Amino acid sequence: MKNLKGACMFGQSGGPTSVINSSAAGVFTEALKQGNITAVYGAEHGIVGILNEKFFDISKEDPKEIELLKYTPSSALGSARYKLKDASVDDSDYRRILEVFEKYNIRYFFYNGGNDSMDTCNKISKYLQSVGYECNVIGVPKTIDNDLYGTDHCPGYASAAKYIANTIMECNLDAKVYNFGCVCIMEIMGRNAGWLTAAAALAGYKGLGADLIYLPEVPFDTEKFLAAVKNVCEKNDNKCIVAVSEGIKNLEGKYVAEAEASANDSFGHAQLGGLAQVLANLVKTRLGVKVRPIELSLMQRCGAHLASKTDVEEAFNAGAFAVKCACEGETDKMVIFERAYDKDGNYVCKNVLMPLELAANTEKKVPLEWITNDGSYVSDEFIKYALPLIQGDAKAPLEEGLPRFAKLKKVYATL
Amino acid sequence: MKNLKGACMFGQSGGPTSVINSSAAGVFTEALKQGNITAVYGAEHGIVGILNEKFFDISKEDPKEIELLKYTPSSALGSARYKLKDASVDDSDYRRILEVFEKYNIRYFFYNGGNDSMDTCNKISKYLQSVGYECNVIGVPKTIDNDLYGTDHCPGYASAAKYIANTIMECNLDAKVYNFGCVCIMEIMGRNAGWLTAAAALAGYKGLGADLIYLPEVPFDTEKFLAAVKNVCEKNDNKCIVAVSEGIKNLEGKYVAEAEASANDSFGHAQLGGLAQVLANLVKTRLGVKVRPIELSLMQRCGAHLASKTDVEEAFNAGAFAVKCACEGETDKMVIFERAYDKDGNYVCKNVLMPLELAANTEKKVPLEWITNDGSYVSDEFIKYALPLIQGDAKAPLEEGLPRFAKLKKVYATL
Repeated sequence: MKNLKGACMFGQSGGPTSVINSSAAGVFTEALKQGNITAVYGAEHGIVGILNEKFFDISKEDPKEIELLKYTPSSALGSARYKLKDASVDDSDYRRILEVFEKYNIRYFFYNGGNDSMDTCNKISKYLQSVGYECNVIGVPKTIDNDLYGTDHCPGYASAAKYIANTIMECNLDAKVYNFGCVCIMEIMGRNAGWLTAAAALAGYKGLGADLIYLPEVPFDTEKFLAAVKNVCEKNDNKCIVAVSEGIKNLEGKYVAEAEASANDSFGHAQLGGLAQVLANLVKTRLGVKVRPIELSLMQRCGAHLASKTDVEEAFNAGAFAVKCACEGETDKMVIFERAYDKDGNYVCKNVLMPLELAANTEKKVPLEWITNDGSYVSDEFIKYALPLIQGDAKAPLEEGLPRFAKLKKVYATL
Repeated sequence: MKNLKGACMFGQSGGPTSVINSSAAGVFTEALKQGNITAVYGAEHGIVGILNEKFFDISKEDPKEIELLKYTPSSALGSARYKLKDASVDDSDYRRILEVFEKYNIRYFFYNGGNDSMDTCNKISKYLQSVGYECNVIGVPKTIDNDLYGTDHCPGYASAAKYIANTIMECNLDAKVYNFGCVCIMEIMGRNAGWLTAAAALAGYKGLGADLIYLPEVPFDTEKFLAAVKNVCEKNDNKCIVAVSEGIKNLEGKYVAEAEASANDSFGHAQLGGLAQVLANLVKTRLGVKVRPIELSLMQRCGAHLASKTDVEEAFNAGAFAVKCACEGETDKMVIFERAYDKDGNYVCKNVLMPLELAANTEKKVPLEWITNDGSYVSDEFIKYALPLIQGDAKAPLEEGLPRFAKLKKVYATL
């Protein structure tokens, strides 16, 4: 639908990343320039803010702060984990969204998130079409998990991967410093896809990686794992670094963290996130070596001080591209990245549009052929894939020795 | 003892830091320039390397790699935790050290470490004096714990403090992103001194800190803690960030991690380091809120990519100063820092010498008057103290997007 004139709404959804705000900066910067966009709104807590009619008037923000968003981790507008019901089952949320969109004459809608958020975006797009409300809808991808279908990679992934690789390099130097050994078990995010954990191989490419890497794509055999750790320990003075995805499942398809922890869980319910501790207890008991469990926790997804410049720029461009395309009449699409190489063989990232329904709820996993036969490392194909994505540094300016993150005024929009 | 001509031995000891190698670079750079120093040796794994006659010939190293040591975390020569017996009880280690020193004509000895390492350095110094072996001995301070007696602060502390403050700022943005709450419990190193945990207040100074800060200097009252968390949760949509030192003890003087975990410990022995999880379980059970335990683990002491430039430079200067002083005839001393302010009120760090025996085994804690009355935060005095120390960035150059750390050849010294 070309030449729509009206307001634009932008929302952030799902788990934060180091660069999701860079996409926000891209959307805001481009939207504020577009003549057909009469107002730029940022939803507080994504879809929840739209339902509650709580969104900020972005024109009130200082351009300097919008620029700083590029280097500010987490979702500056607030995020949400809110699942829309199918409109055929219960359309009350959709009717409310339509009501708000009509009230504020919202004709452009951009939603920034991962699989679940693209599902939300797709459902809203289809509903608005079904009721004949003219609004150009574009999804902007985001996820550290890198598991969105159709795109070469996702904004947010590279910065998390860079954080993980850098941190493993440093911990490798630390954990191997003594004249006695230590098995260091590093737990990395990723319930179903191992892209983040595979980033440990980037540290290995630099000679300071993990000895063993376990992804959720292949079943985790505890006995094989213990044998592999023992083997490394025997060769290397009991020094061994293991990178393991929180989402590994055992041969019966159960989360290892839950299966192993359940016997010891005093609250009667297993928790994900305790995997490193669970494996550490196992290694200590069975192999009798010193073990240190380390969970990279929130730090891996909010460590913006280690963001990839490539990622920051691509995230910004994805947001700006979404706005440009919508203003040219595109709708019901999602921005994806296509990888290309220039004539000198340098990596180039191209923005392309893909139908929204293709993205919704499909997970892209690490190809099995990139995982070594014994399931304990990844091949050079992964390095070739990931290395171009983590190039360059981009971080917030220092103010008294600490990062100066964006400070938004967050003035609620009114009519 | 002036004008001693002979070799110099340098060793690294105790827990690694982000800048201990910067002190090594300072020692090596200065020692290689000194006419009276005939050879520069770096002990592999500190005192253990001396006992085993395993040390590296530093003249074989590329000066570029010595420069990169400034930005390389952990102890590049290898560290040790080896406690020398009192010479009056068993002098076999001392006689072995003397044998090695005589064999290699070692007339300068520099030992880089914290409390225990200064004890080792002091014992060796006194033994060599007692047997009339001429050797100038200077201790170079190092510890992220910042608990060495006599010095304004310790090399290594500021970079760890900067890592902690930066990371808490980022996790604050992440943990508070949703429209539902989460109590985030961040466990920070420090068994007896709370300097590192107090660094959470630097993040607070920037508006993105912890709501509650607990140091080991004051007894930890579990009920008061739960009441304080509840209070913050009530005011702030169940969003609360707690920074807590691993070494907090309960009213009976027992480590909280051990006391609370012992009931659930299936192996019959409590582990330090599980404090965040223990407190998280407590908060979840008693207050019924979502909780996320985070342990900053090794990352806080090896996160060289977030090193303070001030710290890197001071660590280097401390090493170089030790060598200069020894070559001028000083011995049986330790380098300490004195804080001064120039005529414009800018912070200045002065290197001074202190008798070695004063440093050995005395812990300096956070002054009680810097801790608020309810024991859950620190005063502005701490900010004034710590802020000048974390200024400036200094990190390894990037190579393919990841840090290029020093790579030493490590050629064993021979005669």
